Amino acid sequence: MSVHLRPEEIEAESFRLIDAEVGPHPWPPAEWAVVRRAIHTSADFDYARSMVFSAGAVAGGVAALRAGRGIVTDTTMALAGIAKPRLAQFGIRTSCFVADPAVARAAREAGVTRSILAMRAGAADSANGIFVIGNAPTALFELLRLIRKEGIRPGLIVGLPVGFVGAAESKEALLTLERERPEIPFITNRGRKGGSTVAAAVINALLILAAETTTNVRD
Amino acid sequence: MSVHLRPEEIEAESFRLIDAEVGPHPWPPAEWAVVRRAIHTSADFDYARSMVFSAGAVAGGVAALRAGRGIVTDTTMALAGIAKPRLAQFGIRTSCFVADPAVARAAREAGVTRSILAMRAGAADSANGIFVIGNAPTALFELLRLIRKEGIRPGLIVGLPVGFVGAAESKEALLTLERERPEIPFITNRGRKGGSTVAAAVINALLILAAETTTNVRD
Repeated sequence: MSVHLRPEEIEAESFRLIDAEVGPHPWPPAEWAVVRRAIHTSADFDYARSMVFSAGAVAGGVAALRAGRGIVTDTTMALAGIAKPRLAQFGIRTSCFVADPAVARAAREAGVTRSILAMRAGAADSANGIFVIGNAPTALFELLRLIRKEGIRPGLIVGLPVGFVGAAESKEALLTLERERPEIPFITNRGRKGGSTVAAAVINALLILAAETTTNVRD
Repeated sequence: MSVHLRPEEIEAESFRLIDAEVGPHPWPPAEWAVVRRAIHTSADFDYARSMVFSAGAVAGGVAALRAGRGIVTDTTMALAGIAKPRLAQFGIRTSCFVADPAVARAAREAGVTRSILAMRAGAADSANGIFVIGNAPTALFELLRLIRKEGIRPGLIVGLPVGFVGAAESKEALLTLERERPEIPFITNRGRKGGSTVAAAVINALLILAAETTTNVRD
């Protein structure tokens, strides 16, 4: 019975099922490793069509991870979903300021979302360079503002906010970054879907690629 | 511009959009509060069709929360996604043993998934009565075994494992519990989809209903 498979066998079997159901597709291998893990974590084949990578995003993201740049997430869920042993391998620190009492107080006083101030707090530490947004459109809009107005230079943006108000718009805004700042790698999708589990899955897929040191990552 | 709405306004607007897109539906109000929050957190309207509640599940789940029964999750993500202020209101403790080193070691030795032993560890504490499964089919199968073979009596099961190997089957197995043990409330869905964000959203919806003490919860 399939549930008696070991975890690595369950994953391999899942990937075989995903490959078979998707059939022929246009994704290069490194990008497909990311898209497939997004499908694996959500059981949602929409990601086979909706994901978008900036040119060189996988190679750039892998380089940022190998360089040990700190990861900032917009939710504690996304942070919880990132594979900790692989982070340790690269000496990567993670942080999320959305539940920080000082951030909550400042947000109330300023009349803005906690996500905006949490992103600002993460960007203030120059050791951080990987921004993972799985929930809040306002976090992604703020990150774009920090890039354009305050000179922040992320090594990778995973922009996958979810929802009905602003999520799709925030991702369309991220897509405009490619022409303007082609040196900043990003991975996102089109539409309302996304979420902390999918955002964490993208980072986990990149961490696996980053660990395959003998492999030359191209996308 | 919509992103300048306050968080509670964003949520209300999201709910209006969901109501409008779903249109007429057969869900009673209390169940709809749960289904709508699952859609809200995933932007996936499949949940309007796929969710399944045992008879009296919402009222039973609300009672278990008001009674302060401990919550056991299968993932740290699901645990991270549950609204902490509302838990404090009811004196509810949460636990997740999947990252426990002793559980990991025992799972390796026994050749079973960590999720199985993590569920067993949670069930061993009689203060725990609410089981939230957002990832691992093996955790849900093990919970059903604990109920049938070891006399565990959950006050609520949220069974929403996701994936391609065993997830749908584990939820079909949960559905067989209703005839056999009608006193155990459960909330689940049919098919492969699910996940930690949706499982946490179900608990958060029930916590909001539980906090509405002047409202008589029916479903």
